[in-house]
Amino acid sequence: MLGPYKIQVAFSPTLFDGCDLDNAIVVVIDVLRATSAICTAFESGVETVIPVSSIEEAKEYQKKGFLVGAERNGEQIEGFDFGNSPYSYKTENIRGKSVVLTTTNGTRAINMAKDADMAVVGAFTNITAISNWLEEQEKNVVFLCSGWKGRYNLEDSLFAGAVVDRLSKNYKYGELSDSALASKYLYNTAEQDPYKFLRNSSHRRRMHRLNLKKDIKYCLTLDQTSVIPVLMGDKLVRLEEYLDSKA
Amino acid sequence: MLGPYKIQVAFSPTLFDGCDLDNAIVVVIDVLRATSAICTAFESGVETVIPVSSIEEAKEYQKKGFLVGAERNGEQIEGFDFGNSPYSYKTENIRGKSVVLTTTNGTRAINMAKDADMAVVGAFTNITAISNWLEEQEKNVVFLCSGWKGRYNLEDSLFAGAVVDRLSKNYKYGELSDSALASKYLYNTAEQDPYKFLRNSSHRRRMHRLNLKKDIKYCLTLDQTSVIPVLMGDKLVRLEEYLDSKA
Repeated sequence: MLGPYKIQVAFSPTLFDGCDLDNAIVVVIDVLRATSAICTAFESGVETVIPVSSIEEAKEYQKKGFLVGAERNGEQIEGFDFGNSPYSYKTENIRGKSVVLTTTNGTRAINMAKDADMAVVGAFTNITAISNWLEEQEKNVVFLCSGWKGRYNLEDSLFAGAVVDRLSKNYKYGELSDSALASKYLYNTAEQDPYKFLRNSSHRRRMHRLNLKKDIKYCLTLDQTSVIPVLMGDKLVRLEEYLDSKA
Repeated sequence: MLGPYKIQVAFSPTLFDGCDLDNAIVVVIDVLRATSAICTAFESGVETVIPVSSIEEAKEYQKKGFLVGAERNGEQIEGFDFGNSPYSYKTENIRGKSVVLTTTNGTRAINMAKDADMAVVGAFTNITAISNWLEEQEKNVVFLCSGWKGRYNLEDSLFAGAVVDRLSKNYKYGELSDSALASKYLYNTAEQDPYKFLRNSSHRRRMHRLNLKKDIKYCLTLDQTSVIPVLMGDKLVRLEEYLDSKA
């Protein structure tokens, strides 16, 4: 007997409006590299990550003394503390602090998810933690792929598919949208070697030009952390802190 | 040496805005069933198909004496001559005539393609004709999937992937967008048995409820016609007529 829960995938923020958010957890995805970097920051002990959509907002926070990461088109913006590379968040300097982040696609997608009951941040680097946790909830799941400037991208749907592949083995998820099915099939094609699979993807080509091969390998490496970043108001916090605040 | 032509796929009308239409032919797809039905109508000798977006427009044409097909949510609307089933267009009664058509998704997508240099209608039923013809053109190709009410659907991207699979063997297409790559991978997963592959798709479930199995089989049968319907102003005509008008 199939259960009542539904899995949907929005292949790009443009398609998020068409999703049914009723009783749903939204998983925001920007594998290359915002959500991977955010997971790394929490693994390094950051207290909160504040996602902002514009560089202007990021500057305002900087004036107030915040550490700020800012990236556009794959490159760190001059004058800020970090870009979008997960490696730059592997530092003791951020432990217990708040980091403000603005990126080309990911932070905008996170902000779109604010209306949902609950929104978490997913990446290959926390895939097992997030998949197991999702399965324990009595909730529908909506994956929101950040894409690239409103367009579809391969790596975000690949991650969605990897999680759908895990969840769909559980009978509680009785309904997979066509986009969830397609993501799963895509992942099944790629699972032997996702790095090779993404060889021809547009963003990998873009990052290759920027000499970011090491970042790509990192972002495709499973389970480097068990943190689950969750939106609480305007900020991302660790799941434990979110649950404490609700208790 | 890879050639200069680009292939893009808009997984839903919502994503069409993000496509680069420069020097491009747009292929509009609504496999289940609008574009399949349109191809059948031309194979039956229809002179023009006039796609309209609303039922009100369709009624206006009906008052003027046109034959009119109208479908919403998979069912023919009462009071019109046809619905969306390809079988209803297998009739001598439409030879040499104009048929007005409005459907849930397909006709709206066709109308969105009006701004392109050239827009054609594709379905599994004319796949070889359309693939071979596209390959002969010195043009970029944009596939516009009608989807279902703005959402992604499996069958339209499957058809896009089937054509991308053929075209990508030709070196003239040097750039495949991520959505074109994903469509191709999806098709490669499905090509042994597309009918079985679509078993779980939302629209097939919907059509199954409406007892439309025979229609689905028909719409997935390759090469039942060699017609290529082309938009000329507000109407679809055969490619030959379109070319004569330009000569």
